[in-house]
Amino acid sequence: MTRLTEEAQGVYVIAVTPFNDDGALDMESVDRMVDFYLEAGATGLTALGMMGEAPKLTTAESLEVVQRILARLNGRIPLVVGVSAPGFAQMAELSKASMDAGAGGVMIAPPGNLKTDAQIVTYYTQAAEFIGGVPFVLQDFPLATGVHISVSAIARIVEDVPTCVCLKHEDWPGLEKISALRAEGTLARRISILCGNGGLFLPEEMDRGADGAMTGFCYPEMMRDVVRHSKAGDAARARDIFNAYLPLARYEQQPGLGLAVRKYVLAKRGVIGSAALRRPGAGLTKAAQAEVDTLLARQEERLKELN
Amino acid sequence: MTRLTEEAQGVYVIAVTPFNDDGALDMESVDRMVDFYLEAGATGLTALGMMGEAPKLTTAESLEVVQRILARLNGRIPLVVGVSAPGFAQMAELSKASMDAGAGGVMIAPPGNLKTDAQIVTYYTQAAEFIGGVPFVLQDFPLATGVHISVSAIARIVEDVPTCVCLKHEDWPGLEKISALRAEGTLARRISILCGNGGLFLPEEMDRGADGAMTGFCYPEMMRDVVRHSKAGDAARARDIFNAYLPLARYEQQPGLGLAVRKYVLAKRGVIGSAALRRPGAGLTKAAQAEVDTLLARQEERLKELN
Amino acid sequence: MTRLTEEAQGVYVIAVTPFNDDGALDMESVDRMVDFYLEAGATGLTALGMMGEAPKLTTAESLEVVQRILARLNGRIPLVVGVSAPGFAQMAELSKASMDAGAGGVMIAPPGNLKTDAQIVTYYTQAAEFIGGVPFVLQDFPLATGVHISVSAIARIVEDVPTCVCLKHEDWPGLEKISALRAEGTLARRISILCGNGGLFLPEEMDRGADGAMTGFCYPEMMRDVVRHSKAGDAARARDIFNAYLPLARYEQQPGLGLAVRKYVLAKRGVIGSAALRRPGAGLTKAAQAEVDTLLARQEERLKELN
Amino acid sequence: MTRLTEEAQGVYVIAVTPFNDDGALDMESVDRMVDFYLEAGATGLTALGMMGEAPKLTTAESLEVVQRILARLNGRIPLVVGVSAPGFAQMAELSKASMDAGAGGVMIAPPGNLKTDAQIVTYYTQAAEFIGGVPFVLQDFPLATGVHISVSAIARIVEDVPTCVCLKHEDWPGLEKISALRAEGTLARRISILCGNGGLFLPEEMDRGADGAMTGFCYPEMMRDVVRHSKAGDAARARDIFNAYLPLARYEQQPGLGLAVRKYVLAKRGVIGSAALRRPGAGLTKAAQAEVDTLLARQEERLKELN
Repeated sequence: MTRLTEEAQGVYVIAVTPFNDDGALDMESVDRMVDFYLEAGATGLTALGMMGEAPKLTTAESLEVVQRILARLNGRIPLVVGVSAPGFAQMAELSKASMDAGAGGVMIAPPGNLKTDAQIVTYYTQAAEFIGGVPFVLQDFPLATGVHISVSAIARIVEDVPTCVCLKHEDWPGLEKISALRAEGTLARRISILCGNGGLFLPEEMDRGADGAMTGFCYPEMMRDVVRHSKAGDAARARDIFNAYLPLARYEQQPGLGLAVRKYVLAKRGVIGSAALRRPGAGLTKAAQAEVDTLLARQEERLKELN
Repeated sequence: MTRLTEEAQGVYVIAVTPFNDDGALDMESVDRMVDFYLEAGATGLTALGMMGEAPKLTTAESLEVVQRILARLNGRIPLVVGVSAPGFAQMAELSKASMDAGAGGVMIAPPGNLKTDAQIVTYYTQAAEFIGGVPFVLQDFPLATGVHISVSAIARIVEDVPTCVCLKHEDWPGLEKISALRAEGTLARRISILCGNGGLFLPEEMDRGADGAMTGFCYPEMMRDVVRHSKAGDAARARDIFNAYLPLARYEQQPGLGLAVRKYVLAKRGVIGSAALRRPGAGLTKAAQAEVDTLLARQEERLKELN
Repeated sequence: MTRLTEEAQGVYVIAVTPFNDDGALDMESVDRMVDFYLEAGATGLTALGMMGEAPKLTTAESLEVVQRILARLNGRIPLVVGVSAPGFAQMAELSKASMDAGAGGVMIAPPGNLKTDAQIVTYYTQAAEFIGGVPFVLQDFPLATGVHISVSAIARIVEDVPTCVCLKHEDWPGLEKISALRAEGTLARRISILCGNGGLFLPEEMDRGADGAMTGFCYPEMMRDVVRHSKAGDAARARDIFNAYLPLARYEQQPGLGLAVRKYVLAKRGVIGSAALRRPGAGLTKAAQAEVDTLLARQEERLKELN
Repeated sequence: MTRLTEEAQGVYVIAVTPFNDDGALDMESVDRMVDFYLEAGATGLTALGMMGEAPKLTTAESLEVVQRILARLNGRIPLVVGVSAPGFAQMAELSKASMDAGAGGVMIAPPGNLKTDAQIVTYYTQAAEFIGGVPFVLQDFPLATGVHISVSAIARIVEDVPTCVCLKHEDWPGLEKISALRAEGTLARRISILCGNGGLFLPEEMDRGADGAMTGFCYPEMMRDVVRHSKAGDAARARDIFNAYLPLARYEQQPGLGLAVRKYVLAKRGVIGSAALRRPGAGLTKAAQAEVDTLLARQEERLKELN
């Protein structure tokens, strides 16, 4: 088992859930996908993210996917499992099963009915208690959850709840928030900050003090290189690489549509067997496929120019 | 098995989920609750409603509750099971298990990402296909789902999807919608309209053409009597009874808080063993309990005056 | 001039804006309406409320209405003017013009983009600075504004901004919030709490520590009597009167539709010349008018029974 | 006067509102800005856009700005004036004053309470009637307005309302919507489609059938060149230029923050005298300024490489 800690950094790729064209889980693609993410430089994986197709799985399927990923990872890097749920009973059940199977930690997004700082702090305090000593990622994604978590609420959670070890930062705009969190004295202890939003602000996020990315952009290589060069102090190189991928990253970041783009590219790259989304959910139109093809061709050229 | 049809009328009580003080399911209270609802005049029951505590149950627990209710009902009145889910796989799984166990139909609320009429019609068409020939209730509750379903969208669903047999009407304001749906020529066939919102507009809803109520107000007797007197043409009597219960119904209809009020009263009436809500979720403060007690006392007096 | 202070209590009626059938302002009805509100026991008036038709007025018309009301009031009770605006320039302009004309204070609702406690406190601090020493009402109405103001945010505003003299309490549910605000030590100084939501929770709000109502229910007499009997310690009498009006109050509280109900009743009572709403905005259907007529007839009977 | 028609194409720049550091309108910067936009290739201008600082202007200031822009434009290209308002009276007033002063048309965004297709069509039909024969732009911006306008609703408006001559397309994702609108038979007549979202999807939007951009990106040159090369059939050149500006365009598109970025760049380019935003509203932090400076430097280099 590889446990999630405050030291988490690099690229935690949010894994897609591969299906066959008929909507059945495609476990062979799960294996190939895990291999691909490892080769692409992932330092961790995240499964059952709330924005993907995890909510379309039955409970049994969810666990099946988690176990398959863990078997393939074989302890090389930690797996974080999304366990957000309307009730603590379900959350605790999935959390326990995942940790028993070897996961490194879990991720919890706030339910949409939380409004004030005090409610948010109480929620995370109770959730942490329910899942026991399991290290967790606090998911801060207002566009999707409708919940705005202030810097002071995060500070109180970090202070009160020792098992909160990582922030999945996905506020938008969110750069000032990273600076505020990294300012001397804001947090009682340093936790990991991994950024989402498809990597669309990764160079700036690294400059502001993030430790890496936790998102599912279909070229994890971009995130690996941006993080690496940023940490090595070569911001110019980090930006050149980022800029080469940006036209595609921008296209993938379209709400709702993004997952179909991601799967289309991963299928095209041979990572997963089919670009199919489970219903309700539809793939790309011919026009969109052609747009992605154009973006991929130009991206490849540009990357060559850079080498 | 008692199957849900377009003829559904009367009072379909939305059942609470009884827990012990420690948060465990309380199956003995389930039995007592079913008996109570039958005595109070329920013509149907609804379980696992999306606004209650169903989302706090694990999948196994959900089925356990459904089976217990069905066993106790023993075919006397139909049970509708809420099967709303982010994906059709889960929805179909719970729907099949419920129908296999003897449920009469299911209820489906739209996911929050549906925006246009066309999207809503497509969603219900696909959902109906996934759950097979199972009769279902279309849940129209914009305040909770964020989805606004127009009269023309309902008309198209009714026309295209023969298994849509009932509308749970919970738009607010929604009286004109009932009139529009009942107007000559709007719907290709007549379906049942059962109203929610805690019964807060039941007399007017009956006048506009509703067939009854589907909601969980802690005095189903009110809804039974309002429906009965309305149908018998004694609108004045219906209103007198309604007015007597209205101060409590209004108090119970507070968003979020309502369920705690409902369980407090049901526990006080001896229907369920404990007023406890599963966490996250809290019971009434002392001040709120006192307010409910005052309302109950005045309600009892007023009902006596009416007899 | 009658200035708004922390001592505000009783019934501040939110005035409607009377139009002729053709949509022109009806100034004679403004006069009659002011007289009516005074006779019905108003201890204050509020004009240009954000939920009414004030946003449909041009700037010139807004001031015209304010001036006409003030002329008719002639200093007998204070007038609060709603000055919520996207920018402080507009807010300050309308605030100054209103105060110059003799208003007693202004009311400010938060713009929908405020998310955290800190943002809300900053906003009110700046707004108060812009409008100078003008006493203002903090409008807390999450259902309409989308902004949730925590007890601690209110406490900080009360501490930091001496010109915040009153809270228009319109959270729903909101009873525990009043209790929390009135608890020993929560607020650095006592401010007035006047409640909205059409008076639908007035008896309980008074018990929790409110000072009265600030809302527009078409029978201000109800609010006057509930406040009076509550303060006199006769809670039972307060409730009897409240209960008699509740069926209508519930009907009037339908979102969007409520204003048409209110104007229909006020026109029927002879207070305003026409029930017309300025477009976009429509009056009641025949069916709805009949429903209101039925409610009014039963209400009158019930009030007689109580005397 | 230059009138807005269905033939609108190219780049309609959404003008910022220049203020001095003290928050006063800066009219000399208005003149300089108009000159700059003309030189940068604008084929039209749009003033008082709902997402900018127009809502912070008093009514008198709004007209002052419109008149100043029109005077400077002197009929060379059309000016569209944003007239969205809660009521038709205000809308008609501002629309008339603008057209009298020489504007070419107006722009109308839907109020947030519109939910169904039928409501949206009715609203635009009534609005068009109120503003008389003035040509208008239908603003479709769900992220900001909360209103989702379906293709069929647009088709009905285009059919029923002859003065609807242009769609400001700002749905996200929205590419399929353009394709649907441009498909044979969807619209009864061809209207102009100009795209927003900071130009972030402009190459794809042009390919799908858009006629240009209507947005405020601080380098209108990008939009001019992308539109020109797209129309000339040189999609590769259009993309190269687009890609060079994309890192900055992405940064400027951060919700809420974007306007501060835009003004910072325009001030740096000497177009406006101050980057100040009127309060409430704040400028960029030092860290953000440094980020923009870095983006600008890299952009300049990249553009040189392309020439």
